[in-house]
Amino acid sequence: MTEKQVKVVFTPSGRRGSFPMHTPLLDAARSLGVDIDSVCGGRGLCGRCQITCAEGTFPKHQIQSAITHLSPLSETEKSYSQRKKPLANGRRLSCHTLLLDDCVIDVPPESQVHRQVVRKAAEHRDIELDAATRLYFVEVPEPDMEVPKGDLQHLLEALEAEWGLTGLLCDTALLRSLQPALKKSGRSLTVAVYKNTSIIALWPGVHLSLYGVAVDVGSTTVAAHLCDLSSGEVLASASMMNPQIRFGEDLMSRVSYVMMHPEGAAEMTGIIRDALNDLFTQVAKQVKGSVEDILEITLVANPIMHHLLLGIDPVELGGAPFALTTDAAIEVPARELDLHINHGGRLYVLPCIAGHVGADTAGVILSEEPQNQDQMTLLVDVGTNAEIVLGDKNRLLACSSPTGPAFEGAQISSGQRAAAGAVERVRIDPQTLEPRFRVIGSELWSDEVDFAAQTSKFGVTGICGSGIIEVVAEMFLAGIITVDGVIDGALVERSSRIIADGRTFSYVLYQPDATAVIGVERTTPITITQNDVRQIQLAKAALYAGVKLLMDKVGVERIDRIRLAGAFGSHINVKHAMVLGLIPDCALDQVSSAGNAAGTGARIALLNNKSRNTIELLVTNIEKIETAMEPKFQQYFVDAMAFPNKTDPFPNLFSVVEKPVDKVATEVPGSRKRRRK
Amino acid sequence: MTEKQVKVVFTPSGRRGSFPMHTPLLDAARSLGVDIDSVCGGRGLCGRCQITCAEGTFPKHQIQSAITHLSPLSETEKSYSQRKKPLANGRRLSCHTLLLDDCVIDVPPESQVHRQVVRKAAEHRDIELDAATRLYFVEVPEPDMEVPKGDLQHLLEALEAEWGLTGLLCDTALLRSLQPALKKSGRSLTVAVYKNTSIIALWPGVHLSLYGVAVDVGSTTVAAHLCDLSSGEVLASASMMNPQIRFGEDLMSRVSYVMMHPEGAAEMTGIIRDALNDLFTQVAKQVKGSVEDILEITLVANPIMHHLLLGIDPVELGGAPFALTTDAAIEVPARELDLHINHGGRLYVLPCIAGHVGADTAGVILSEEPQNQDQMTLLVDVGTNAEIVLGDKNRLLACSSPTGPAFEGAQISSGQRAAAGAVERVRIDPQTLEPRFRVIGSELWSDEVDFAAQTSKFGVTGICGSGIIEVVAEMFLAGIITVDGVIDGALVERSSRIIADGRTFSYVLYQPDATAVIGVERTTPITITQNDVRQIQLAKAALYAGVKLLMDKVGVERIDRIRLAGAFGSHINVKHAMVLGLIPDCALDQVSSAGNAAGTGARIALLNNKSRNTIELLVTNIEKIETAMEPKFQQYFVDAMAFPNKTDPFPNLFSVVEKPVDKVATEVPGSRKRRRK
Repeated sequence: MTEKQVKVVFTPSGRRGSFPMHTPLLDAARSLGVDIDSVCGGRGLCGRCQITCAEGTFPKHQIQSAITHLSPLSETEKSYSQRKKPLANGRRLSCHTLLLDDCVIDVPPESQVHRQVVRKAAEHRDIELDAATRLYFVEVPEPDMEVPKGDLQHLLEALEAEWGLTGLLCDTALLRSLQPALKKSGRSLTVAVYKNTSIIALWPGVHLSLYGVAVDVGSTTVAAHLCDLSSGEVLASASMMNPQIRFGEDLMSRVSYVMMHPEGAAEMTGIIRDALNDLFTQVAKQVKGSVEDILEITLVANPIMHHLLLGIDPVELGGAPFALTTDAAIEVPARELDLHINHGGRLYVLPCIAGHVGADTAGVILSEEPQNQDQMTLLVDVGTNAEIVLGDKNRLLACSSPTGPAFEGAQISSGQRAAAGAVERVRIDPQTLEPRFRVIGSELWSDEVDFAAQTSKFGVTGICGSGIIEVVAEMFLAGIITVDGVIDGALVERSSRIIADGRTFSYVLYQPDATAVIGVERTTPITITQNDVRQIQLAKAALYAGVKLLMDKVGVERIDRIRLAGAFGSHINVKHAMVLGLIPDCALDQVSSAGNAAGTGARIALLNNKSRNTIELLVTNIEKIETAMEPKFQQYFVDAMAFPNKTDPFPNLFSVVEKPVDKVATEVPGSRKRRRK
Repeated sequence: MTEKQVKVVFTPSGRRGSFPMHTPLLDAARSLGVDIDSVCGGRGLCGRCQITCAEGTFPKHQIQSAITHLSPLSETEKSYSQRKKPLANGRRLSCHTLLLDDCVIDVPPESQVHRQVVRKAAEHRDIELDAATRLYFVEVPEPDMEVPKGDLQHLLEALEAEWGLTGLLCDTALLRSLQPALKKSGRSLTVAVYKNTSIIALWPGVHLSLYGVAVDVGSTTVAAHLCDLSSGEVLASASMMNPQIRFGEDLMSRVSYVMMHPEGAAEMTGIIRDALNDLFTQVAKQVKGSVEDILEITLVANPIMHHLLLGIDPVELGGAPFALTTDAAIEVPARELDLHINHGGRLYVLPCIAGHVGADTAGVILSEEPQNQDQMTLLVDVGTNAEIVLGDKNRLLACSSPTGPAFEGAQISSGQRAAAGAVERVRIDPQTLEPRFRVIGSELWSDEVDFAAQTSKFGVTGICGSGIIEVVAEMFLAGIITVDGVIDGALVERSSRIIADGRTFSYVLYQPDATAVIGVERTTPITITQNDVRQIQLAKAALYAGVKLLMDKVGVERIDRIRLAGAFGSHINVKHAMVLGLIPDCALDQVSSAGNAAGTGARIALLNNKSRNTIELLVTNIEKIETAMEPKFQQYFVDAMAFPNKTDPFPNLFSVVEKPVDKVATEVPGSRKRRRK
């Protein structure tokens, strides 16, 4: 006599089937290919396979109590509730719940292996969770003298029998902990398996902590985000200044340091690795865990940081032909680079694109997915060089343009790094030519009542990158600067803000109070010199010329969509940028900050193993344009020196230029914190 | 108009073909699949592709001078002769020699990649040279700004284009040396490629040194043999006492040490690795090379040494069920075990067979090839345990038998390790019961004139393993010991050599001269006590019972061939061993020493990559017998306590027993040196 058949539907997948009464729900789900997580393999230990019974929704049935559809709460479930974590109302462990009658079972997102990880910005697709490393609990048979066999071989056979994992390798360094772990736990283990091929860690008994860190190594800031590889959640974040700053603010001065010091590269490699290790310890501490629980690192960096981190002297990147040592993705045990996570933990570094277009840009692409866009999309990441990607679903091009460090506040007379006291917002009255401004660390404008009091702790110290853009743009809009970038000396008559400075003129943005207590406050005025304006002209001309070159190659006159990545992109006022001609004309509502897109790319690579193949393949197919080799680049550069520039009509910009600039600001809330640390 | 076709035959392969006149010989050889070595890829740099023209042997031609068959000596060849090594008479570089007319070309063995490496013993097949690591010289294109690409990618493309190596990986640690090497050499490199899959080392320009080390880690002695991986030659050897001896002479006392000291395993791991590193330095120094030139290590060891070397606590091997951590072969970068060869160098450890049957036995099997024998072959390797393999081409069985350390001279009242002064040969006159003996370090018998003078430096200090066998066997042949192993007290009447020793009797082998200067010389007599005889009985009964068990399993009554491996096998007198019943009856000329077969196995695995698959597959198919689980073992053991034993008729032995024992000694000349170091 055959057992009575019972029907079951799983949501949200909609998969359905009939099973003999008393079939465990997890078994039914598996045979239907329903995505339910389990680390312990149905032993009621891990709590990952929880479901709820969506009773009464089954068409042909009346509403019934759950008890008639499913077996009553088992001893294993009661024990789990007591020992681990109480089961929420209506939740059951599907491995210990048997089918009794037709029913609909809901698999909540946290019980799915391949759940979607929600990204903040609405325009992005969510990340499909599919981490390279997974945990498997397994019971290993006792050694048998009749069939002498290594304990590793017992383990491998159990993993094959229970989880279908075949041909697994095992890190040799793990062998020493195998027998002690088996002994401690009565021969049950949790193993971490990397890419379905290698056992990279093991723990006695049930182990459920599985973390990865997504790392963004910038020239200025290094940030790490600890993610739970089982849920995709970001659990902790930490960042710090790149300690290499003491060898030079910008990348080229660090390369110069390396050239002049035989041990310079090794020294810089050492301190950046130490910095990362600090961050790993910090984020692990934030979740009250240990770096031992971190099994993976994914990392993005510009080419020079990338090479230094790998221990490679970046000297070849300091001059033509800017030859990378490797442009391929790197996959290596983290310990080989002295990165201290779990001994078997792996590091994945995204591929570089070209000598000036690094793994950080690969991260931006992974995050922004220009290859999936119908719209012609421009991605710009500004640092010492601007890394530029242009394209759509048909093709992608990339180049780098030598903007120099002016956008970062360097080589500007009163320039400084973005930090408390730095001018970041400026407005100039076109009538009076009087400015008002805001500094980082205060929400007040300089003409508001409590400004002096609120900024007294740090003072007004200089101008940061976004402040420079604003003040030059406002000077242009107020008529202080001509189309050719000349500060108009005739205005000396109209305003004391315009002063002669040898044979050129300067604009006085800020005059310190002569009565101020000398301390944090600067004692000299903040002026915008003719040379400062020239530096901005050179930088923006380089950026624009690079973009124009790619537009040429693609054969488009217009760009549909612009995404500005990184700290610069988060803080810049789009309209000011367009006033200066940094970026080509585009509908203003199609210009936005991509936030920390490079870091997001690292997080995608961390949470979704397949995305690594995607970006590796994509990078090999990107058309790499070397601006220095393009005869047209020089002409575009010269043409772009004017404000906004000679070749772009900027209809979108001038249709809105009468509105106050504030109304079109694009700053992304919350994107600022990290930068100011 | 097509070029005139020329015929060429290559010897010894006999491959032949027609080619356009002026075809380089190397190209012709390659297109015919003739095995000619080349590291530099036909650039006349490496000198590996030398050939001679066996002129006039082509049937349809008259004898002609070589000049008409081949192009005259090229500038490249002249330059090679001057810069590197003069070309021997008649030798040409096939890469720079063009075919002019029909001819026969001889490829000498040293120009063949897959040459045969001759093994000493005539009964062995030679080793086919096919090392896992090979060198490839390559010229790497200059970086090109038009097509930005990493230098690694340039290198990989060049290796694919020139050598057909596809999909190569590259050790991440090598990346840092890539660009400096390219710079140093004008962008030419030699790379070492492991198993056609990974670049593990690189050097600027042409590099031809490529060494591997075969290592045999015994409980007592550790030996390393440096081989040229391009020629298969053993270039240097070194050995030392296993420094773990200070934790215990035999394996079990070392395991006890580990059990009693929490850091004991780590300590022993450290000192054995240090010892290996010493040996690597020594052998590299012998060839005036550096450990950097060593790219591979292959290693055999018993299970406990194997585990300690891998950093695994061997405590589970100290008691039932004797569970190995792993029985699989180990393949790992040597640096991961702190072994100092080239940073990218690889270690291969042969697989273990069972808890007591280690990678050393796998080495013996690889060397002896019982799986290819028609004859039923017994392989015995005696240490603290005897590792026993029995079988032929149809099936192989293995077991280990707990002989204890008596055969190594331990637990014997006057026993000692084989060293100068240890008694190793003994004869007892059946009439007078007077003994004569020889000690290690002297070729004289104790009754010869200069014996005392020649041994005065070290004296007569004790009895080593082979000496124990001899003296007990001689005592049995002289009637001093009964079939049951009892020293016959009645003989006290006949000889002062027999003395009462409590309730049992002893035989005085050596009475020190009362007048001897006290120093190296021992002052107490060397006696063979009743307990000594019992220890030998227990040991030999265990060995014999193990063999008998395997014979039972196979279902044979007789063994065709016996090979005794290791130091014990090299020094033992076969007839004495048979007199005692250590080994079953067998035609005496079919019993021989296998020499250091385990070490030879390591060398085979070093020189021939495919042999690794062979032994791995073979080991999984060996039937492993656990003597402790076999009810019959105990009975066989008891039966084998008698001399020779109760179940074996020993017809072969007794047909020759009248001949003096000396005539059937099987010592292998030259096999002794290593042991005595």
